[in-house]
Amino acid sequence: MIEKAYEEFTNNYSKILEKIRFYSSSINDSVKEHLKKIWINYEPEPVKSSFIAIDGGEFVKELRVGTVFLANAEAVYGEGVNVSPLDNEIKMGVFRPGNLAKERVSEIMSVLELSLALRNGNKAEYVLMDGSLKKKLGNGKDIEEEEKDLDEIINCDNEERSFRRLILKSQILICRLIQNYDGKVLWVSKNSRGRDLFGESLSDIAVIESLTENPGFTLPFVHTIDRKNLVNNKEVKSLEGTEITSFYVRLEKGQRVLKVDLTGRIEEEEIKKIINNLHSVSIKGYPYPLLKVHYDVKVNKEDRQRILSILGLNHIRGNSWWPNQFF
Amino acid sequence: MIEKAYEEFTNNYSKILEKIRFYSSSINDSVKEHLKKIWINYEPEPVKSSFIAIDGGEFVKELRVGTVFLANAEAVYGEGVNVSPLDNEIKMGVFRPGNLAKERVSEIMSVLELSLALRNGNKAEYVLMDGSLKKKLGNGKDIEEEEKDLDEIINCDNEERSFRRLILKSQILICRLIQNYDGKVLWVSKNSRGRDLFGESLSDIAVIESLTENPGFTLPFVHTIDRKNLVNNKEVKSLEGTEITSFYVRLEKGQRVLKVDLTGRIEEEEIKKIINNLHSVSIKGYPYPLLKVHYDVKVNKEDRQRILSILGLNHIRGNSWWPNQFF
Repeated sequence: MIEKAYEEFTNNYSKILEKIRFYSSSINDSVKEHLKKIWINYEPEPVKSSFIAIDGGEFVKELRVGTVFLANAEAVYGEGVNVSPLDNEIKMGVFRPGNLAKERVSEIMSVLELSLALRNGNKAEYVLMDGSLKKKLGNGKDIEEEEKDLDEIINCDNEERSFRRLILKSQILICRLIQNYDGKVLWVSKNSRGRDLFGESLSDIAVIESLTENPGFTLPFVHTIDRKNLVNNKEVKSLEGTEITSFYVRLEKGQRVLKVDLTGRIEEEEIKKIINNLHSVSIKGYPYPLLKVHYDVKVNKEDRQRILSILGLNHIRGNSWWPNQFF
Repeated sequence: MIEKAYEEFTNNYSKILEKIRFYSSSINDSVKEHLKKIWINYEPEPVKSSFIAIDGGEFVKELRVGTVFLANAEAVYGEGVNVSPLDNEIKMGVFRPGNLAKERVSEIMSVLELSLALRNGNKAEYVLMDGSLKKKLGNGKDIEEEEKDLDEIINCDNEERSFRRLILKSQILICRLIQNYDGKVLWVSKNSRGRDLFGESLSDIAVIESLTENPGFTLPFVHTIDRKNLVNNKEVKSLEGTEITSFYVRLEKGQRVLKVDLTGRIEEEEIKKIINNLHSVSIKGYPYPLLKVHYDVKVNKEDRQRILSILGLNHIRGNSWWPNQFF
C-alpha cells in the first residue's frame, strides 16, 4: 500500500479504535434490561450423548483452460472426547472455463454434506452441522429446474443452469433431512451476525459476549422458512412455513457464544437437555466433533501444494520474474 | 483434506489433465478459420507516448464489534520505463458489524480510482484502468438513490443503502469520465473470460493464446451499455446505448493476450496507433505503469501485519491453542 496511506493510518488509528469501542459501548441500558429477561445462566450437567458431526472442504483452481476442483465432506462419530471418522463423500473434476465456478463448488460441497447427514443421521442422538440453516438453504428464488443426478449436474456445460440445479438439489436434501430427523439436527454457527434479538448495531453474539460470561443460554426465538427463498419444486414446497427455533448458548465459562438452529418448536427444558448433551463433547466451549471434522476436511496449504504439484501446476511461471498472482 | 480424497485424486489426476486438454483441443477447424479472419499479426512500431495508470488496493478486517477497512488508490504517470506517482486517494474507517462489508470496500476503492481518473485524465495521452469497463460499471438494476458525499455514504448505517449509493456514485463517475475523456481511457483486462468472439468453451483469450504467438490484435467488436445495468439516475441514463469497442492484443511475441475496452467506435488504424503507444511502455507484453501502480497500492502481507499490530489485533488469541481462523 502507498506510504501515505500507512501514515494516515498511523495518525488516525486511535480514532478507529475509538469507533470500535463506540460500537461496543453503544449497548445501552434498555439492551441490558432486555438481555436480563432472556439470558438464563445455566451450569450444564454433563449427560453423555452421541453425535454425528459433518463438515466439508474444497479446493478450486481457476486456469485459463478450465477450473480444477475438489470437494470433500466427512461425517465423524463422537462420544465424549472420542471422535472417529464414519463416512465420507468426494467429488472432483474440471469445469470448462467460465463463471460461477467457486459458487458451484461450494454448492457441491453442501450437497455432499447433506447427503452424509441423510445417510448417517440415524447413527447417533444428534447430528451437528456447521453453519446456519438459513445460509445452507441459500436463495432458490425463481428457480425451476428438473432434479438431476449430481454427476450430470456437474457435467452440465451451462453454468447458470448447473448452479440452479445444485441449489435445487441441496434444498431437496434439506427437506428430506428435516422430514427424517426433525429436531435432532443442530445447525451450529460460530460467527453468526444475526441481530434478531436486540436490534442493535452489534450482532446478538457480540452483545451477549460483552455482557455475560457464565455458561447459559437465551430463550428460544422462532422464525419460519420464507417461501420466497425456496425453489419452485413440489417436494421443497413442503418446507414453506417450517418453524426454525434458534437460541444462543455458552457451554463453558468465559468461552465464545454459539448460535444453534433446529427445526420445530422447543421449550426451555429441551434446550437444557441439548446443552447438557453438547457439554459432554465440549472443549473450550465448542463441540469437539465439529472441530475435528473441520480439520479433517479442510484443504490446507500443504494439500493445495500437493494437488498443484501432482497436476504440474505449481511451477508454471516459477522461472519468470512475473508475479504469479498476476495471471 | 481427508486421505481418501487425496488417494482418489492421485488415482484420477490423469483424467483431470485429460479433461483440461480436452477443453484445449476442442478448438475445432471452424474456430481456426474464424481466427484467421479476425486476427492480424502486427509488429508494433514504438511511438513514445504518455500514460496515466490507475489502480486500487484494500484491507478489510471483520471483527465481532465492527469491520475495519482501508482503501487506497493511486495514479502514476508513465513515459517509456519512467513511472512516477502523481496523485492518490485514501479512505479508512470502521463499519458497524454487518453484511456487505467487503462489497462496500471494493466499491469505495472503485470510487477512489474513478475520482483519480477524472482528476488526472488530462495529464497524459492515455488513461489506463485495470479491469473491464463492464465489471467496473457493476449492476445498478433497480437502484434509485440520492447522490451523496462519499463520507456520508460510508457513515450510513444502513448497509444495503450504503452499498446502493456507492454503485450510484461509481456509475456517475464513469459517466463523467466518458464524457470528458471519451476514447482515451483504456480498460485493460489480464484475465478476461469473455467468449464473445468464438462462442467456444474456452475463453477468447485462451483460444487466441493457443493458436497464435506473434504480436497482433483482433478486429474490434462493439457492444452497447445495457440500460438494465444502470442505476435510475438522470445523469447516468445518458450512458444508455453508449458504444464500447473491445479488442484483444498481444504486445510482444510469446507473451499473454490482453483485452482492451474503450468507449466509441474505432477502426484498425486507430488500434494500431494504440498498440504502438502501449508498446512504448510494455515490459513482457504488459503496460508497465499498470504493473507499477498495482504493486504500489496492493495491501500485501507485510502491510496487513503492520495494520493489525498497530490496532493491537495480531495477537488477540495468540496464546490459545484455539485456531485463529476459527473465530
